[in-house]
Amino acid sequence: MNFAEIIEKKKHREELSTDEIKWLISNYITGDVPDYQMASFAMAVWFNQMTSQETSDLTQAMIDSGITYDLSQVSGRKADKHSTGGVGDKTSLIFSPLVASFGVKVAKLSGRGLGQTGGTIDKLESCPGWTGEISNEEFIHNLNTVGISIMAQSSAVVPADKKLYALRDVTGTVDSIPLISASIMSKKLVVPADSIILDVKMGSGAFMKDLDSAIELSNTMIEIGKHHHRNIGAMITNMDRPLGRAIGNAIEVKEAWDTLHGRGPDDLVELCTTAAAITLMQNGIFKTIEEGKTELVKKLNDGSTAHFLKDFIEAQHGDFSVIENYDQHFTTKHAIQIFAKQDGFLKFNSTDELGLLSMRLGAGRARKEDSIDFAAGIYLHKSSDEAVKNGDLVMTLFTNRDDVANFEKDAYALFDINAQQTNEPTILKVMYNVSEVNN
Amino acid sequence: MNFAEIIEKKKHREELSTDEIKWLISNYITGDVPDYQMASFAMAVWFNQMTSQETSDLTQAMIDSGITYDLSQVSGRKADKHSTGGVGDKTSLIFSPLVASFGVKVAKLSGRGLGQTGGTIDKLESCPGWTGEISNEEFIHNLNTVGISIMAQSSAVVPADKKLYALRDVTGTVDSIPLISASIMSKKLVVPADSIILDVKMGSGAFMKDLDSAIELSNTMIEIGKHHHRNIGAMITNMDRPLGRAIGNAIEVKEAWDTLHGRGPDDLVELCTTAAAITLMQNGIFKTIEEGKTELVKKLNDGSTAHFLKDFIEAQHGDFSVIENYDQHFTTKHAIQIFAKQDGFLKFNSTDELGLLSMRLGAGRARKEDSIDFAAGIYLHKSSDEAVKNGDLVMTLFTNRDDVANFEKDAYALFDINAQQTNEPTILKVMYNVSEVNN
Repeated sequence: MNFAEIIEKKKHREELSTDEIKWLISNYITGDVPDYQMASFAMAVWFNQMTSQETSDLTQAMIDSGITYDLSQVSGRKADKHSTGGVGDKTSLIFSPLVASFGVKVAKLSGRGLGQTGGTIDKLESCPGWTGEISNEEFIHNLNTVGISIMAQSSAVVPADKKLYALRDVTGTVDSIPLISASIMSKKLVVPADSIILDVKMGSGAFMKDLDSAIELSNTMIEIGKHHHRNIGAMITNMDRPLGRAIGNAIEVKEAWDTLHGRGPDDLVELCTTAAAITLMQNGIFKTIEEGKTELVKKLNDGSTAHFLKDFIEAQHGDFSVIENYDQHFTTKHAIQIFAKQDGFLKFNSTDELGLLSMRLGAGRARKEDSIDFAAGIYLHKSSDEAVKNGDLVMTLFTNRDDVANFEKDAYALFDINAQQTNEPTILKVMYNVSEVNN
Repeated sequence: MNFAEIIEKKKHREELSTDEIKWLISNYITGDVPDYQMASFAMAVWFNQMTSQETSDLTQAMIDSGITYDLSQVSGRKADKHSTGGVGDKTSLIFSPLVASFGVKVAKLSGRGLGQTGGTIDKLESCPGWTGEISNEEFIHNLNTVGISIMAQSSAVVPADKKLYALRDVTGTVDSIPLISASIMSKKLVVPADSIILDVKMGSGAFMKDLDSAIELSNTMIEIGKHHHRNIGAMITNMDRPLGRAIGNAIEVKEAWDTLHGRGPDDLVELCTTAAAITLMQNGIFKTIEEGKTELVKKLNDGSTAHFLKDFIEAQHGDFSVIENYDQHFTTKHAIQIFAKQDGFLKFNSTDELGLLSMRLGAGRARKEDSIDFAAGIYLHKSSDEAVKNGDLVMTLFTNRDDVANFEKDAYALFDINAQQTNEPTILKVMYNVSEVNN
């Protein structure tokens, strides 16, 4: 086996064998296949794609580069969730209590955020003491007792992805659906969950800019799941608007807490209950999504699942009282108010830009070594498509940084007030294989 | 300007600007664009090709990486010739005297061979003392006096090509027509010749395996020439058979000398007179190829141009007497005779393999550091498509290496004797722009 043969096959769209893909990845990790050869291979994949079998083999070869988890000591069914990342996305913090309340354990690895707002790990660190750096034993113990555990993804998980992603990032090969799929799924499949729900974000605040690409990505990941005998559901959700009203870190945990008490914004409720309903269908609890959603909305309104969030955070050493007494703990030097200057319907020009403003306020990292200001962020008093009147408060920017005039200017550039409502749905498409439900 | 923007444009088949291509190549030479980025770019070019303007800009950017020559001190018109390389190709040694005899100077840079038989420089070094390592002054002096000079290509000529070719060789991006074209043409255009005739070889002994690719390569190089205001002619010639009867080094110089005295094999005469006729049309000597060929065949038959080869070799310090007294100087330990075992028409299975056998006999280099045995090689008593009878001598292998049994076995595997003649032409296509002739 050698690189020359493999690259010729890929250039001419011949299917690579399992062994060839394994050879390529294992030799890339050792450095025997140098970066320049892998870059040329990745570009050939960008053009010629990969078959379902090849993508699955790539995923497995990447998994084989690192550690995997054993959850055989966790009782009952295990569910996982993944979001491709969006602005205001605190879904996991609401999804997990909903799912756990039915006895389905939520076992999740999570990463830190880079750019825009923080990742789930960052958001949870708003609660002083909370840590994702827990042992396997603690992970298993928390799953068996609380029903939820989120672990910071170790660098020993899929090291091939780290190396390959860094290369793709500088060689124009990030936007390749088979490579994205293998990257995401390799990191998901190391945790042996019975079901995985994928939230594929689409729109101006997301990597997938159009529905066709988002569907293709979802299908590719569902196919990888089939090859690995896992039950994968996917939903394509709208990132042409931020999710919910809170963008930041502590402020998002607070919004999750409010949502778990029946005070959540409609779009966030819709997304979280749909994700949880699919997961609970995948695990045999519900027969239909609608049945699930009805039940789950009740649970949000009666507040009965909220304690799962608090219990989980406390089990991982976090002080949850800061969220219960939010206003005492998360104050900022500046609270910049942004007002509507006419009547109409609010429309954000770019969700991405909203996320980047939040980052500049202190809520995200521009570079890996930057630290996060948990109190910084944005609260949207009015959200996308909502009716506003001249003089209405649209948003408040929370920051400890003094660049107030620029923040204000940037915020006003972020939205228009239009005469027409756009009525964009929160969820664009739900994809799962019914025949595989309850497998 | 940055790599990310350039690679996105190339991925999406948008035309790169002159400045973008210049930036890419100049930063690749300095190492600011690393090999892995250039590899991904080269693969994107493999898939999306380059426009005529892009290929021309790439050629210029590569030329700009090194030195160029000034031939303003050479009187009269200057002609150059390039062959993409084939087995038994001693065309330059016959073409140059023919052209020089009309007062058109033949100014050529040439490389050494790697694999199969030697390059023109290697063949000429069969004459003890001959050197291509001459100064610019000597190059110009020889052109003005003898009318022919061939200089070994300095490493200061198009260093970008050397770096890029080494990368393409290991990243599956050699077989890209714009990259091949820019590589060839950048090295040609550093010498300001008025005309260039390109001999694009096609078939089992050549890089281009089919006529469409050979035509595309020729057209691309002709287009580059137009952008650089040079008059380029091209001919696509058959490499499903070796050229002439001699394969090696000294033995090829000898065959050239014989051809210049009217004793050349038909295919070699046809190719050399056609190449020279096109060149002489390009430089205003003839009106049609046929007129030129008739005149040139006469010149071969009367032996009047032969002295140009001897004069040129002697001007570059070579002892030509070794060729005139060939049998005394180029003896080998073994002369292995290969016979026909039936009646029919001779057909070589692979010209490439014939070249590789010649290399193993000692006539070529498997590695850059190998030395060449000038006396080693193959003489074809019968050539492709020629009628043979059982027991006829087909070829003699000349070698100083003792692996005789294997050489013999390999030689017998190289040809078949068929009932039918194939009648393949030597020249498959001639391409030049009549409107540009005599420019």
